[in-house]
Amino acid sequence: MRDLPTTRAERAQLAMMLEVCAYPKPGNVDRCHDYEDTRLEHFLASAIYVRPAFERAERGDGRMGDLIREAVRLTSGHTGGNTHFGAYILLMPLVMGGDIPGALQVIAETDVQDALDFYAAFGLVRVRTAGSDELDVNDPRSLAEIRRRRMTLREIMAYSAPRDMVAREWTNGYRLTRRAADLLESSGCGRQAIVDTFMALLAAEPDTFVAKKHGEETARRTARHAREVLEGTRDLAAFDAECIAKGINPGSIADITIAAIYVALGEGWRWDC
Amino acid sequence: MRDLPTTRAERAQLAMMLEVCAYPKPGNVDRCHDYEDTRLEHFLASAIYVRPAFERAERGDGRMGDLIREAVRLTSGHTGGNTHFGAYILLMPLVMGGDIPGALQVIAETDVQDALDFYAAFGLVRVRTAGSDELDVNDPRSLAEIRRRRMTLREIMAYSAPRDMVAREWTNGYRLTRRAADLLESSGCGRQAIVDTFMALLAAEPDTFVAKKHGEETARRTARHAREVLEGTRDLAAFDAECIAKGINPGSIADITIAAIYVALGEGWRWDC
Repeated sequence: MRDLPTTRAERAQLAMMLEVCAYPKPGNVDRCHDYEDTRLEHFLASAIYVRPAFERAERGDGRMGDLIREAVRLTSGHTGGNTHFGAYILLMPLVMGGDIPGALQVIAETDVQDALDFYAAFGLVRVRTAGSDELDVNDPRSLAEIRRRRMTLREIMAYSAPRDMVAREWTNGYRLTRRAADLLESSGCGRQAIVDTFMALLAAEPDTFVAKKHGEETARRTARHAREVLEGTRDLAAFDAECIAKGINPGSIADITIAAIYVALGEGWRWDC
Repeated sequence: MRDLPTTRAERAQLAMMLEVCAYPKPGNVDRCHDYEDTRLEHFLASAIYVRPAFERAERGDGRMGDLIREAVRLTSGHTGGNTHFGAYILLMPLVMGGDIPGALQVIAETDVQDALDFYAAFGLVRVRTAGSDELDVNDPRSLAEIRRRRMTLREIMAYSAPRDMVAREWTNGYRLTRRAADLLESSGCGRQAIVDTFMALLAAEPDTFVAKKHGEETARRTARHAREVLEGTRDLAAFDAECIAKGINPGSIADITIAAIYVALGEGWRWDC
């Protein structure tokens, strides 16, 4: 084995591939579980199709909102629907900026056009949003409101942050991503480190995607059950089966895990031990 | 779902991804089986890393031997060793030429330099070859002999064809690839069609990779057992477990399955039904 140089775009693609292959990840599509409409191959196809958007981001060819929209467009040609919307929100600044400090820099530079392009990305897929959102992404009046208030994409994320842990990463300095990357690096190399990191995040924070879909109580209960698995008082396989049966898929924790794998790969963490 | 245009490079990458995910494929790495040294993630990482070589092939930037060597180089940076050497031998002409007729055209145009570059690719990985080969790829005298005889890469493949079913595809017009693509297209869409096609090939022809590793009798017996599975007189799971336990991995049949998926995708076959 030799170490060949890895581009940022490749690291982002690898992160998407490694996250979905790791198992068991309770409730989510993984090596051993599909949902009926969204299967392992859909996630892996997205990891292949997205590359031109990441390559543009890496060479500085394009603005944030446009590049996120392009990533969504490139990966919405299959029947699996939206596989990685949240992951692109986290990865695109990282690929543009290289690492977390670089990502925060490009995030600070987003503008109104980025916000409008980002909203256009929603039109390409079905993304679950909190019903109470004033800036409903499915409501054309939202675009007029963004223009009127001159909101940047960072301000849109700040607006969503209380209800969306992915948006929150933009405003709190990628706090959970950083924590998860540290966990990965301290857990050793390879697949099991990804599972350990996913479980630690799931136990630490209620998943806001689960909260939007099933309510906050379900999200809190899922986190509590994850803690019980880690404490050894709940069976992992049974927890996984229960999540799958109820459609409790912690998608935002998965998105943050992907971002953490990207960061860790850039810091020398090895997936292939 | 919308149909987005798919490049040849993307189709080749998808073919590599779809083949390794399909299961059960007796004896091979698949969604449910790893070998200790080579795991699902190694195959999928190769499908990501190889893209620049396929993109060069698609835009006509480079010659056959050089592009195969480049594909091997790009995908030998991880610990999984050689995952797709045979697949690149089949895919590179297809990506350069577009389809089987185009591939045969570019194969006819290979020259001595292609042969020398191809031999250099062997230096990057460990590839199993028949011990009786006169042109041993590990023997530096082979290069002098290729130069002396002015052998083209097509002639090298013709030389190997009696003992290597991948090389044989170059000289018989991609006969098995064509048959497998027809099987895929008549088997319906998606994962099960890939498994059905793999099993049909395995039953029809002794795998020459298995023959080189375990002897011709083992290759013939494996084909016979595959036929018995198809006839319903042998259990598929038991056959798979036996192959895995004995390290009988039909790698050349897998390579031809990948080429067939590429061809079928180009003819409108859908993986995502």
